[in-house]
Amino acid sequence: MTIPNIKHALPVTRAQDFAAWYQAVISEGDLAEESGVRGCMVIRPWGYGIWERIQKLMDARIKAAGVDNCYFPLFIPLSFFAKEADHVDGFAKEMAVVTHHRLKSIDGKLQPDPEAKLEEPLVVRPTSETVIGAAMSRWVQSWRDLPLMVNQWANVVRWEMRTRMFLRTSEFLWQEGHTAHADEADARLETMRALEMYRDFAETELAMPVIAGEKPENERFPGAVATFSIEAMMQDGKALQAGTSHYLGTGFAEAAGIRYQDAEGTQQLAHTTSWGTSTRMIGGVIMVHGDDDGLRCPPMIAPHQIIIVPMLRDNDEDAAVLAYCEALAKDLAALDVFREPVRVLLDRKPIKASNKRWSWVKKGAPLIVEVGGRDVAGLNVSVLRRDRLYNEAGKTANEIQSRAAFLATAAETLRDIQASLYEEAKIRLDSNIREGAADLADLASAFVGDKPGWVLVGWSKPTGAALDKVQQWLKGEKLTLRNAPLDQEPASGACIFTGEPAVERVLVGRSY
Amino acid sequence: MTIPNIKHALPVTRAQDFAAWYQAVISEGDLAEESGVRGCMVIRPWGYGIWERIQKLMDARIKAAGVDNCYFPLFIPLSFFAKEADHVDGFAKEMAVVTHHRLKSIDGKLQPDPEAKLEEPLVVRPTSETVIGAAMSRWVQSWRDLPLMVNQWANVVRWEMRTRMFLRTSEFLWQEGHTAHADEADARLETMRALEMYRDFAETELAMPVIAGEKPENERFPGAVATFSIEAMMQDGKALQAGTSHYLGTGFAEAAGIRYQDAEGTQQLAHTTSWGTSTRMIGGVIMVHGDDDGLRCPPMIAPHQIIIVPMLRDNDEDAAVLAYCEALAKDLAALDVFREPVRVLLDRKPIKASNKRWSWVKKGAPLIVEVGGRDVAGLNVSVLRRDRLYNEAGKTANEIQSRAAFLATAAETLRDIQASLYEEAKIRLDSNIREGAADLADLASAFVGDKPGWVLVGWSKPTGAALDKVQQWLKGEKLTLRNAPLDQEPASGACIFTGEPAVERVLVGRSY
Repeated sequence: MTIPNIKHALPVTRAQDFAAWYQAVISEGDLAEESGVRGCMVIRPWGYGIWERIQKLMDARIKAAGVDNCYFPLFIPLSFFAKEADHVDGFAKEMAVVTHHRLKSIDGKLQPDPEAKLEEPLVVRPTSETVIGAAMSRWVQSWRDLPLMVNQWANVVRWEMRTRMFLRTSEFLWQEGHTAHADEADARLETMRALEMYRDFAETELAMPVIAGEKPENERFPGAVATFSIEAMMQDGKALQAGTSHYLGTGFAEAAGIRYQDAEGTQQLAHTTSWGTSTRMIGGVIMVHGDDDGLRCPPMIAPHQIIIVPMLRDNDEDAAVLAYCEALAKDLAALDVFREPVRVLLDRKPIKASNKRWSWVKKGAPLIVEVGGRDVAGLNVSVLRRDRLYNEAGKTANEIQSRAAFLATAAETLRDIQASLYEEAKIRLDSNIREGAADLADLASAFVGDKPGWVLVGWSKPTGAALDKVQQWLKGEKLTLRNAPLDQEPASGACIFTGEPAVERVLVGRSY
Repeated sequence: MTIPNIKHALPVTRAQDFAAWYQAVISEGDLAEESGVRGCMVIRPWGYGIWERIQKLMDARIKAAGVDNCYFPLFIPLSFFAKEADHVDGFAKEMAVVTHHRLKSIDGKLQPDPEAKLEEPLVVRPTSETVIGAAMSRWVQSWRDLPLMVNQWANVVRWEMRTRMFLRTSEFLWQEGHTAHADEADARLETMRALEMYRDFAETELAMPVIAGEKPENERFPGAVATFSIEAMMQDGKALQAGTSHYLGTGFAEAAGIRYQDAEGTQQLAHTTSWGTSTRMIGGVIMVHGDDDGLRCPPMIAPHQIIIVPMLRDNDEDAAVLAYCEALAKDLAALDVFREPVRVLLDRKPIKASNKRWSWVKKGAPLIVEVGGRDVAGLNVSVLRRDRLYNEAGKTANEIQSRAAFLATAAETLRDIQASLYEEAKIRLDSNIREGAADLADLASAFVGDKPGWVLVGWSKPTGAALDKVQQWLKGEKLTLRNAPLDQEPASGACIFTGEPAVERVLVGRSY
């Protein structure tokens, strides 16, 4: 709903400049900021609080699947990395390399001490297949040790030339699952289990609808046999890859020596998988749910779900207002929603109540409750739903409710906000996927101007030179192949790129 | 209690070789292992599970104190680091330095690409005062912004020549709190609050008694005005510094430009603090609570508090045994202890029950419950308390209890194990601190041979050359000053080192 003449809280709207709007949500919502260190951001308390919620909920799913958390080294010796040829080719271009272990003042200037040069440079992990593979080779001896399933929550570094907060930063935070299995079937099952976990997490916890599917060969993880992704549609119609799951075959097991004795006593190579999600998901949440007043944070991942703002006037009434707010906070915190206690914050900061309101609007707190002397007298509260900020007249849609009625419905309202955010995004996703294109010109025309969305086209899975040709055309149009959705109907007709018979259908779109 | 003729689970006892015993606890208990990357360890699921418990419980304390979690960059530009002279002097000797951002194959060998050399080298954070100070300088404008209190859970790197798992590794995991305050009094209050939080955490959650006190000048954090620590006594009598809290004065604020306008409109420098604890605490837990059969993990930080081992015989009884165990696990998980649900694991691994038992003994699971066909028939369980493993005859002290009686007392037993571990360690600490020494020869003699413990001696707080002389003597004796305990009685008599009047008393001991 866009109502004219509203003065929005952000200095720029989505329609005016989507990229500038994205940065404004992040800075005005105190989510993150530039650190002064090239390509690295500082994640501020509200942004980090969202990440803590994501960690907690995703970690519960990972543990429930029988995967154990561990911690592996930040540094990977070059020789580990070089063992898997495709893998090192894919990552060598963007890695931070540690070459010295000491600084020294030389000519009055602090610099790496030439006498403390490492014999073998260390790479700051861009991903941990190689170093975890080395550990797995020690842990796996017999079929009884399989499946071996571990995960780590860690920072990783990929040197990026053009960075954008949360979406592409040189350092980012993520979880990476790594598993080893007795055979391909079991490893593929785990690959799909992780993908389905990500799909359900995105749709349930993040209220972000996604398309799960297999990446075409040219978009595979370096060294993988098959890569699957979940793809979310941002409000500008671009795709964001929000999680990936890889079946790695036996290549990494071969490189690291992950071998086991099967029940018949024969030595076998393990089949491995890896799967990951990162702080990038927060960028997705912003671009899926944000509006011209800032973020709208889904209640399941909001660090605080309900904010109570006391309207203090520096007079005798203040004590009663605060006491009323404290009692309300206590009663709300005793409620459960999404099988956890409601997270409520009484905002006591020494600043004006209206500034507090708008700061929480920009941060995207799901419910903002204001309490003044009149509310105390009438046993009321003034409630603002962040997902329905304005009424039809373009005024902020505060609603006076009795304290009792608000308490009785608060949990249900939070569930409704979570569901509404999902619905809104789901309609946008579904209505912006076009089926088919007559030819390449028709396909290209679907992206001319501001028209958002993706196109689903026939795909013959070309390889080699034929695939290179497709990639070249896509690059020229600034398009990418996103994925071939799972559970699709059998393809018919010709591949739009090669003219060969289509074996599946693939999504084409602009992307982050 | 040491009973002769027991065949213990570890290949080496504490009495035989304490250092080898420590490594055996770690490897036999599957806590951690060498990674193949110099100075870095792999933290395995049981060790990482203990760290997750520590994180969860410490994080709750940090949040309750009003401190916000954030995340700051892994990399610190050399110029940031060089701003605080004492600080850079203290750390420059042991830092990992990133000098390149790309690898290239040259003469068939992968190496740092000379064309991708960084203009300014980046240091992998050994601690984050400088990069967090830079952020604080942006966030602090007015007295209303103070106190500003943030914390991060992160990995840090200090290049170490001699490493020992958990105690001293090149990379380790920690939390670092950083706060800025309007004046010295408030900053010192926060320094002491954090110290007291650590003392209470060590004694309550880790069941590890400690002495909290101020470090002498020569043991201060580089750049600090005052450093405080908690010191725990290991079973070999050595001290382990298990947490530190620093009052940093205005030095870091000056270097980073953390200034605020006070209520009168005058520009003022903030006063800062920092405080940290790390995976080192796990090393302390091992050396305080471990015995010749492995770790004894305090129930509050045990990833699983009760292990159920079904005694399966590959026959018709097995299904009934498993069903009985499942129901027992469910009933135990419904209990609360330490204000959380009891953490129970039914161990279904396809290995022999006796191997499972000993693997859990070595890991230090507080209660191990074995269930066989006879127990099912009699509605019993066989319970082994990890802290009382053997009876007086030197046999494992399994106790047959009725299922109902075990359920009724399990939570209380876990509380009793936590309290017993603390009591045992507290008696050891108290009885191994000697008060006073006649002279330096007498002090040195307190550490000859295997005599464990610390000595509390008069201290005149010398500085400069006088302090250097003390340090030299201590170094010769392989001793260190640990801390001057808080809340000590007024010192009398002379400083044992300088002969000057003592102003306080300080603990002397060997240390890790």
